[in-house]
Parts: sequence; structure tokens; C-alpha cells
Amino acid sequence: MTRWRLTIEYDGGPFMGWQRQDHGPSVQEALEQAAFRMTGELATIHAAGRTDAGVHALAMAAHVDVMKTLTEHRLREGINALVRPAPVSVTAVEPVADDWHARFSCVGRRYLYRILNRRAPPALDKGKVWHVPIALDAEAMAEGAAHLVGRHDFTTFRSVHCQSQSPLKTLDSLTVSQVGEEIHIRAAARSFLHHQVRSMVGCLALVGRGRWTPGDVKTALEAKDRQALGLNAPPEGLYFVEAVYP
Amino acid sequence: MTRWRLTIEYDGGPFMGWQRQDHGPSVQEALEQAAFRMTGELATIHAAGRTDAGVHALAMAAHVDVMKTLTEHRLREGINALVRPAPVSVTAVEPVADDWHARFSCVGRRYLYRILNRRAPPALDKGKVWHVPIALDAEAMAEGAAHLVGRHDFTTFRSVHCQSQSPLKTLDSLTVSQVGEEIHIRAAARSFLHHQVRSMVGCLALVGRGRWTPGDVKTALEAKDRQALGLNAPPEGLYFVEAVYP
Repeated sequence: MTRWRLTIEYDGGPFMGWQRQDHGPSVQEALEQAAFRMTGELATIHAAGRTDAGVHALAMAAHVDVMKTLTEHRLREGINALVRPAPVSVTAVEPVADDWHARFSCVGRRYLYRILNRRAPPALDKGKVWHVPIALDAEAMAEGAAHLVGRHDFTTFRSVHCQSQSPLKTLDSLTVSQVGEEIHIRAAARSFLHHQVRSMVGCLALVGRGRWTPGDVKTALEAKDRQALGLNAPPEGLYFVEAVYP
Repeated sequence: MTRWRLTIEYDGGPFMGWQRQDHGPSVQEALEQAAFRMTGELATIHAAGRTDAGVHALAMAAHVDVMKTLTEHRLREGINALVRPAPVSVTAVEPVADDWHARFSCVGRRYLYRILNRRAPPALDKGKVWHVPIALDAEAMAEGAAHLVGRHDFTTFRSVHCQSQSPLKTLDSLTVSQVGEEIHIRAAARSFLHHQVRSMVGCLALVGRGRWTPGDVKTALEAKDRQALGLNAPPEGLYFVEAVYP
């Protein structure tokens, strides 16, 4: 048996999310089916993060156990050929130790959120950015973001469906930068609560529009109350960027 | 009557190209129909460049004459609302002089060609890049590109359907750069022959794969013969980037 680490890029648009669902297509199912057709083995593919419906990945980390002897080349090319036409692509594979676990060994996760901030809707990046037609103040957003960095009770930024045992998380960084017509928000932490990034981005957008002050983000955080949340940013702007391992 | 300059972004994927066609959808038709529904006037929209099927635009320049009195805001928002769901977006409008012409006043055109150079196919940028799975040598490509800059007879790089009176063109610049997993080729000239950019990129890709030397590009140029052409790069990697006016 070989445990393989997979690096996966996907367009979240047509999927109900990473995780297998009864009611629609998932990235996990698409990959597991391709792997099954490739190896003849039924195996679960475990990912570092279970992204929501519509959320994309530039480099999701995952692992799968395969009994059959395969080269790295053959495994990657085989899955990529068989996963078509689903917009999923295995960009790298490598053998790892049998106790390496994409989810439990992961010590850091990084996300990018892309806001297209101009009047005109996106033609080329439709479904790949959150289109906000009202001018946002990126500097005020960065000031608001700074209040969220560190170890906090993130109850305000947590989905009611969140399965995490504790709302206490350490947000290592949350940066806001203007990149041409886009505003990029980058978040890094060991782990995140369900909907945490989209909830934080939603509040920062309110700050950017001037409806909240940067200090209102601190007030919302300290309220430890989901009702204090401004708005959840939509999934299409969110990208899982990287999983970090020791 | 007001002559309006339009700046247009579009995803060329679903279109037969910019120009109106009898046998399929075009960007021009989509925009003219939206403008007609907006103004009640039948008007032609003229563009700086007539891109082929599948070719994209980040900022195509065009113009249209409108009798009805409209604000910039209303014209842009109206067309964008009515052009949906076609992946076309008017990013800017401004009134121009009655003798300003998007095509004939244009003194410079810039294109970008994106090659995704990695084994794995694109998941997020499917239809937006040319996927070349074999490693390309960007430095050799840049060396080959240098032979094409300047005033030359570009017959080798000209489509048999080209309507230009002369094959003589001045290529102002042709650069090759590695950007992460992508190779970007940027071309600038007053005007281009039909298929010129894609033909040049096709030859440079042969150089990148080592099947041509950089000097073979010069030989092909000097042959002034379409048969000397290596290969036409596919449309999906090509973007009309900018039209320059005095």
C-alpha cells in the first residue's frame, strides 16, 4: 500500500462543495470515481479542508491509499484523464508516510478572497470573483482586518452548522490589498471555523463601503454573537490556496 | 447625435468572434442587440480589432453613434444589464468627437498570449489559456521572438484569409516572460495581419520545445511563405489587451 499526497486545483462552480453529498456533485466524488476507474480500488480521498459549494482551490492538499503499484506520473495522468470533464486537476502527486494525513497533519491553511471592485460586472472572471460595484476603501478594510488577527473567540464569524468543538481560533494574518480593479483579502491560520473567512470578508466589505467603521469589526468580534455579523461574502470569490505541513 | 467610445471586456469562448456572422453568435451582435433594446436605434458598433472565434478581450475599444440623449452611467449600465447572460461587459464609456473612429483612429494594438506550461490541465482557467504539457524554454523563445521585431514582410505569419493590402508590418515589440506556471507573450504593433499573433506564438512554442532553434524563426520569416509556418497557436490563449489612440 502506498499513501499518496495529491495537490488539486478545482473550479468550485459546478460542485456542492468538496465533501460527498447525496444531493449533488462534489469534488471528492469526482476524484474518487476517477481514482476507482484508474486503480479498481474503492478508496476515500481525504482533504485538508472541506470547501463549501462554489468555493475554489488553487492547491488543495489531499491523500489517498492505493494498493496497486503505480508511478507518480501514471497516477496523476490517469486521474486527470478520467476526471474529465469535471473542472478538477491533480497538479502534483508524491508518496508520503503511512501516518501522514492531509487533514490531521495540516498545521496551516491559507485562503484568498477576490473582490472585483468596479461598476461593470465581470465577463472573463464570472463565478471567480465577488463583484462589488460600489467603491470600497481598501485602507479602511485593512484597518478593520487588523482587529481580527490573534487568538479570539470567533463565535460572531461562525456558521450555525459549524462542527468545531471550540470557537477559539488563532488568526495568524488577515491582509487586504488593492490589485488593479480587485481587492485581495488573504487569511492564514492553523484552522478556521465554518464560514469564518466569508464572514470576515463580509464585515470588511461593510467597512469598505463606509457602513461600518474599522472599530465596528472589533465590536462585532467582542459581541461573540452571530447576530452581530454584517453579511456573509458569497462563495465564488473564495480560494483555498495552500495547506502547510511540518 | 453622440459618438460614444466603449471599452469592452469579453470571454471569446461562446462566440464566433467579434464580427457579426450568419452562422453563429458574435460579440458585435450581442452588443448591438443590447444597445438596440436600450436606445431603440439600429446602430453598428465598430471595434479596433476583429478578434477570431475563441479570442478574448480585456479592453477592446469600440464606438457607436446614439441619437438619444443619455448619460455615461445610463448607457453603460443599460448595455450591461441587457447584454446578459452573454459574457460581455462594458467597463467604460465616454463621449468622443464625431470623427473619432475605433478602428481607423487606432495607432497601436496590444495583445497578450497566455500559455499554461505544466503537466496538469487547467481546472480554473480552462478555455482561458493554451495548455502546453511539455516544458518550454522561455529564454530560447525570447531569443526567437527578437528576430520578429521591426518592419518585415510577415507573409509566413499571415492567414490565407487575411484581407490586409500588404504583408509589410512593423512589430514594435514581442516579449516572452515566465509568470509562475505560465508563459506570457506580449505583442505590440500599429496593426497585425490576420492570425499573425497566433502564428508567431505557434513558432515560438516550437522553439520552446527545442524542435526549432531561435534562428529557425528568422529563417521562417525570411522564407515569406505560409508553408514555412510551424503551427498556429489556438485561440483560447489570446487576449486583446489595449487599443492606443493619439
